[in-house]
Amino acid sequence: MKSFASDNWSPVHPVVMDAIINANNQHQAAYGDDDYTKYAQDLFRSIFGADSSTHFVFTGTAANVLAIESISHSFSAVICSEHAHIHVDECGSLEKHSGVKILALPTINGKITPEQIRPIIKSERYPHQSEPAVISITQTTELGTVYTLQEIKILADLAHNNGLFLHVDGARIGNAAAALNCGFKEMLVDTGVDVLSFGGTKAGLMFGEAVVFLKPGLDKHFELYRKQGMQLSSKMRFIAAQFIALLSSDLWRNNAMQANAMAQYLAEGLSKNAEIEITQKVQSNGVWAIIPPLLAEKMQNTQFFYPWDEQKDEYRLMCSWDTTKEEIDRFLDLSKRSNS
Amino acid sequence: MKSFASDNWSPVHPVVMDAIINANNQHQAAYGDDDYTKYAQDLFRSIFGADSSTHFVFTGTAANVLAIESISHSFSAVICSEHAHIHVDECGSLEKHSGVKILALPTINGKITPEQIRPIIKSERYPHQSEPAVISITQTTELGTVYTLQEIKILADLAHNNGLFLHVDGARIGNAAAALNCGFKEMLVDTGVDVLSFGGTKAGLMFGEAVVFLKPGLDKHFELYRKQGMQLSSKMRFIAAQFIALLSSDLWRNNAMQANAMAQYLAEGLSKNAEIEITQKVQSNGVWAIIPPLLAEKMQNTQFFYPWDEQKDEYRLMCSWDTTKEEIDRFLDLSKRSNS
Amino acid sequence: MKSFASDNWSPVHPVVMDAIINANNQHQAAYGDDDYTKYAQDLFRSIFGADSSTHFVFTGTAANVLAIESISHSFSAVICSEHAHIHVDECGSLEKHSGVKILALPTINGKITPEQIRPIIKSERYPHQSEPAVISITQTTELGTVYTLQEIKILADLAHNNGLFLHVDGARIGNAAAALNCGFKEMLVDTGVDVLSFGGTKAGLMFGEAVVFLKPGLDKHFELYRKQGMQLSSKMRFIAAQFIALLSSDLWRNNAMQANAMAQYLAEGLSKNAEIEITQKVQSNGVWAIIPPLLAEKMQNTQFFYPWDEQKDEYRLMCSWDTTKEEIDRFLDLSKRSNS
Amino acid sequence: MKSFASDNWSPVHPVVMDAIINANNQHQAAYGDDDYTKYAQDLFRSIFGADSSTHFVFTGTAANVLAIESISHSFSAVICSEHAHIHVDECGSLEKHSGVKILALPTINGKITPEQIRPIIKSERYPHQSEPAVISITQTTELGTVYTLQEIKILADLAHNNGLFLHVDGARIGNAAAALNCGFKEMLVDTGVDVLSFGGTKAGLMFGEAVVFLKPGLDKHFELYRKQGMQLSSKMRFIAAQFIALLSSDLWRNNAMQANAMAQYLAEGLSKNAEIEITQKVQSNGVWAIIPPLLAEKMQNTQFFYPWDEQKDEYRLMCSWDTTKEEIDRFLDLSKRSNS
Repeated sequence: MKSFASDNWSPVHPVVMDAIINANNQHQAAYGDDDYTKYAQDLFRSIFGADSSTHFVFTGTAANVLAIESISHSFSAVICSEHAHIHVDECGSLEKHSGVKILALPTINGKITPEQIRPIIKSERYPHQSEPAVISITQTTELGTVYTLQEIKILADLAHNNGLFLHVDGARIGNAAAALNCGFKEMLVDTGVDVLSFGGTKAGLMFGEAVVFLKPGLDKHFELYRKQGMQLSSKMRFIAAQFIALLSSDLWRNNAMQANAMAQYLAEGLSKNAEIEITQKVQSNGVWAIIPPLLAEKMQNTQFFYPWDEQKDEYRLMCSWDTTKEEIDRFLDLSKRSNS
Repeated sequence: MKSFASDNWSPVHPVVMDAIINANNQHQAAYGDDDYTKYAQDLFRSIFGADSSTHFVFTGTAANVLAIESISHSFSAVICSEHAHIHVDECGSLEKHSGVKILALPTINGKITPEQIRPIIKSERYPHQSEPAVISITQTTELGTVYTLQEIKILADLAHNNGLFLHVDGARIGNAAAALNCGFKEMLVDTGVDVLSFGGTKAGLMFGEAVVFLKPGLDKHFELYRKQGMQLSSKMRFIAAQFIALLSSDLWRNNAMQANAMAQYLAEGLSKNAEIEITQKVQSNGVWAIIPPLLAEKMQNTQFFYPWDEQKDEYRLMCSWDTTKEEIDRFLDLSKRSNS
Repeated sequence: MKSFASDNWSPVHPVVMDAIINANNQHQAAYGDDDYTKYAQDLFRSIFGADSSTHFVFTGTAANVLAIESISHSFSAVICSEHAHIHVDECGSLEKHSGVKILALPTINGKITPEQIRPIIKSERYPHQSEPAVISITQTTELGTVYTLQEIKILADLAHNNGLFLHVDGARIGNAAAALNCGFKEMLVDTGVDVLSFGGTKAGLMFGEAVVFLKPGLDKHFELYRKQGMQLSSKMRFIAAQFIALLSSDLWRNNAMQANAMAQYLAEGLSKNAEIEITQKVQSNGVWAIIPPLLAEKMQNTQFFYPWDEQKDEYRLMCSWDTTKEEIDRFLDLSKRSNS
Repeated sequence: MKSFASDNWSPVHPVVMDAIINANNQHQAAYGDDDYTKYAQDLFRSIFGADSSTHFVFTGTAANVLAIESISHSFSAVICSEHAHIHVDECGSLEKHSGVKILALPTINGKITPEQIRPIIKSERYPHQSEPAVISITQTTELGTVYTLQEIKILADLAHNNGLFLHVDGARIGNAAAALNCGFKEMLVDTGVDVLSFGGTKAGLMFGEAVVFLKPGLDKHFELYRKQGMQLSSKMRFIAAQFIALLSSDLWRNNAMQANAMAQYLAEGLSKNAEIEITQKVQSNGVWAIIPPLLAEKMQNTQFFYPWDEQKDEYRLMCSWDTTKEEIDRFLDLSKRSNS
C-alpha cells in the first residue's frame, strides 16, 4: 500500500535502517553520552557552523516547543501563521508547556510578512500584553510554499531589530533546501535564523528530530528543559545514528528532491483534469487542490489522501521519499477512469 | 482630578467604603469562613437562583482564568473575540495558568457570532487540535457594545449543543444590565450562561470580583483552584462586605446608569465636532472616537483618556459611576476652545 | 469575639483604615502608576536601601510564588523546611505556577541548617535532577521561632557560594524584627538575603503584601510575572496607602511587639498548668502547646484556636496586634475553671 | 564493551530488532492508526484483561507523567518514596507538566508503607493543602527490591478506601514478575492497581514505553494529554512492533530472568570480598554495595558502574538481558586481582 496521506506514512529509508542496525553493538553510555551522539553533533556543527549546537528529541512538536521555550519566557508572545503547526497541530503543547501566548496571523500561502508583524511588535502595552519574543515560521510552510532566502533574512532582521528571535519549524527543511537549491547554512545561518527544528521523521527516519541552535548561548538551559520536557532519549545512539546516515551523504537531498519532483509531477497530472484546481504553488512535496467530492472519494480509494479544507473541497496530497512516477501514473490513470 | 482613562481610576463609592468600615469589627474567621462571606454568597444566590454558587477573588483576570479553568482541561481551546480581555490584556495568564489555547476571532464591534464559531467547532482533528471547550464573551464588550439577550441565548445553545460551555467576562456586567434594562437573572441565567466573572472594581469597589457558577456542580474544584491560583483572600469579609453594599440595594444599577448616561452625553457632545467621528455604537459607559491627533492631545490635557488604536487615531473615553454632567460640559467646552 | 486562631482573623488597624479612607479621593492612575504606590515604593527603598525595589501583590502565597519565580527556572529546585508555608499551605501553587520542585527538609523547630542543605546541593546529577536554585526560609518560622542574623548570613553565604539565591518568606517579618530588636536592613540586607516576601495582612493590613528585591536586576521580569500571575491590582493606591501607614511610623513595630509580648504572656500563663506542655520556644507571636484534648476543647470554646498536630494533641495559639492582657487573663482564668 | 552502568546501556535484543526491520514495509497510517499498534494494544488487553487499555509513549518519564496526569488534577498531591524516579530522576517533570505536588516519604529499601501514607491522607486541610490523589510505587523499586503481591494489594486498598489511585512505575516490571514468578495480571490487576507505566527500553527495546490503564474510563483524556505532552509518535508502528516482539513470546520473561539471575550471581561473587558490603536485598537485576573507593575505582575501570551514594561509598551495579556469567566471572576475577 502507498498513499499521499503524509510523508510520515512512509517507511524508514533502507540506508537509515542499516545505520540503526549497525549502531546496535554492545553497550553505549545512555542519555546522549555515547559516541554516535557526539559524532552526529559534530556533523551538525560542520554543516551549521562552529557557533551552532545541536540536541536530539523524539518528535517535531517537542523540537518546536523546547526550541521556543529556550528563547522565551512564560509571559512571551510567539508570532506565527494561522496555519502554523505549533498553532493548529500540536494540541496547545506550546502554551501548556511554556506558558506563552501564540499570536496567529492570517495568510493565504502560509507565509507571514513583516507588514503583518510590525504593528504587533509596536502595539505592546506593558505589562498587560504578552511580550513578543519569537517569530516562528515554517519552512517549507504548512501549505507547501517556500520562503526565499531574502524573505527569511528580512524576518530575521525585523526580529533582531526589535529584540526578538527567529525560529524556523523545519519539519520539512530538507525539502526546502532542495527546492531552493541551496545549502542549510546559506538558508538558515547566513540569513540570521536563531534556532531551527530540523525534521527527521518526514525525511525518511524512523523517529528523531534535532534542535539546532545557530547562535552561541541560546542552548544554555536546553538539556534541562529537554529532560523536564520528557524528551531525553536513554538509548540516544539510535537517533544519532539515523541523522548520521541522513546527513553524512546526499541522502537527505536525494530524498527531498525525489519527493519534490513527484509533487510537481503529480500536480501536472492533476491539472490536466479540468475539474481539479491546484490552489497553492507547488514548491515542495505537497499538492493542494480543489477536487469535486465524488471524484475525490474515488481517488482516495485508489491511493489515500486527506481533505485539507472540507468547506472548500480542498485536499492535500503529500509525496514522500518513496513516491514513484509509476505510482503516480497509476493513480492518475485510475483517477481518470474513475471519473468517467 | 477626574479622567476618562478607565473606570478603575475612580475612587471607591462612599456606600461601599462605609460597608468596609463597618466590617472592621473584632475577629472573623479567615479564608471565607466569616459571616460576611456567607451573607454575600446568599445574596448572589437570591439574585442568580438556587442552582448558582459564588466565590470571591481579587482581580478580573483571576475571575476569568479560574472560571475557565473550572470548566476546561489543559488540552481545551477557548473561543473568544480578538479584542477579548483574556486575549489582549491579561499577559497570557489563561494560557500559562490553565494550559489552554485561545482561538481569537476577528470582530468589528467586539461581538462574536455563531457563524464564526461553528466551523471551528466542526473542524477539530482529534487528537492533534486543542478541543474547543469554552466560548467566552465579554458583556459589555471591550468596545462598549452589548450582546442582546437573544444573542446570548443563541451562543449558549450553540455551546451546549456541541458540548461546550459559555463563559461571560462581566467586568462591566452592571453596565450591560443597565443598558438592556433587565435583571442579571434574565440576562445570564435564563439565556443559559454557565459561568460569569462578575466585576466589582469597575463598579465602584476598592477590590474584589466574583465568580458566579450558574449550573450545579461546575464549581466542584473551584476552591482548590482558587487557593492554588493565589487568590484566596484571608480577610475575605472585606470583599464580601463590598458586594453586599453593591447588590443589596440599587447601588450597582444607579452607578451603571450614571456611567452609561454620561457616555451617551459625552458622545453627543463630541459628535457635534465635525472633526470627531464616533466609531462604535455607544451602548454602555465608553465612547470610541477618531480624533485628530493635535485635538486629541489638547483634550487629553484637559481630562486624560487613552488612545485605543494609534494607527487609526482612535481613542477610548470611559465614564464611571462618578462622572458628572458638569465635568463633561467643562471638558467639551475646553476641548472646543482648545480646538480653535 | 476574639480568638487565637490566626493573626489574620483580626481586624484592620485603625491607623491603616484611616489611610485607606484618606486615599479614596478623586481619580488615580490604575495598575500602580499612582502617587501612593510611588511614595510607598520610595519608603521601602529608604528602609531596604537604594539597591532594593518593591512591588505589591494581594496574598502571601502570591508574594512567595512570584518572588521565587523571578529567581528560578521551571527546572529549578527550591530547598525549604517541611513546615514551610510554600510546601504545606499553598496547595501546590509554587509547583503549578513556576514548575519548580520543592525539596522539603525535616526540622524540629522550623529552621533549616547548612548541614542539611549542603549534601543536596552537591548531589545534583545533571540533567536528571532539578537544579537547586533557591533556599527559602520563613522568618518568623511556621513554628514561631526566629533565625538569628548570624544564621541568616550563613545560609545566604551558602546559597551564594553555590550559585543559589536566598528567599525569605516574611509573612510575619515585623514580628521577627521586633523579636530580634533589630531593623529590617540589618536583618535582611546586611545578611545578604536576595528577595523578601514582606507580610502586610498579618501585621494589621486589610490586604496586600510586598515583594522586596534586595539586589539590583532581580526584579527585571517581575511586573510581567505579576500581571500574568493575576496579581496586578488596578486600584493599587489602596495597598500602597496601607503600607505607608504601616511603615512610615513605628506602627509595624508596635503591632509586632504587642503580639509578641502577648504570646510570651500567654505562654507563661499556660505553663502554669501542669497538664500543658509548651513545645516550641516562644520567640514571636505564637504559642505551640500539647494540651489534653478535653481541656483543649473547653479552652477552644472560650477563645478559639486550631489544632496543630492532632496525633500529638498539639495546638497553636496565635496572638495578634489586637490581643490584650485582659483577654488573656480572662482566657486563662476561664480555662482554669473549665479544667476543674 | 560491557558495563554495569544501567540496563539502558545495553543494545536492542536481536528479536526486537528483527521485529523493527519487519515492520518497515510500505506505508502505514501515522499516529497509531496502523495495524501494528492495534495488534499490540490487543496483545496488552489479552494480558491485562478486557477492562484495560494501553497507549504508547517514548520515555519512562513520559509514561509516568502522563499516567499520573490522567488520574489527578493540578491541585493534587502524589505520594511516593524519596527514591522514586518521579521525584529524583525526572527533573521536576511531573510538577511542571501536571502542576501536582510530590510528597516524598523516607524509606530504607525503596518501599513505602501504609503506616507512612495514612497520616498524610488524614491530615489534609482543605483547601490549603494539595489533595492527595495518587500513591505511586516503583516495581521493582529504585533500590532493586520488590513489593509482594500482598503489599501491593494493601496499598491499592488503602488508596481506594480514601478516594486515591495507585500508580505503578514499572520501568522494570518484567524483572519484578520474573522475581515474583508470577504473571502481570496476578501482580497488577488482581491486586487492584489503577495504572501502570510498562517499561520497554530497559527490557531490551530500542525505545518505547506503554501506559496501561487497568480500569475502564481512566484513559478518557489520555490521547489528548499525550499529544499535548509531545509524546505522540508519528511512525508508531515501530514502537508497537517492538512490544509485540517482547510480549507475544517469553522474551520479556527470559530477558528479565537472565538479568535477575546475573545480579544474584554478581552479588554472590562480590560478597566473597570481605571489603564489600551488599546493602540491599538482591531481588531483581541490581546490586547495591558499599565498596572502598580505591577498590571501586579499579573495578569501574574494568567494567563501568555508577556511584549511588557518594557519602556512604555506596555503588549500584545493574545487570541487563545481555549480561553473561563469563563477563561477571572476568569482572570478579579482575576485581580481585586489582584489589591485591
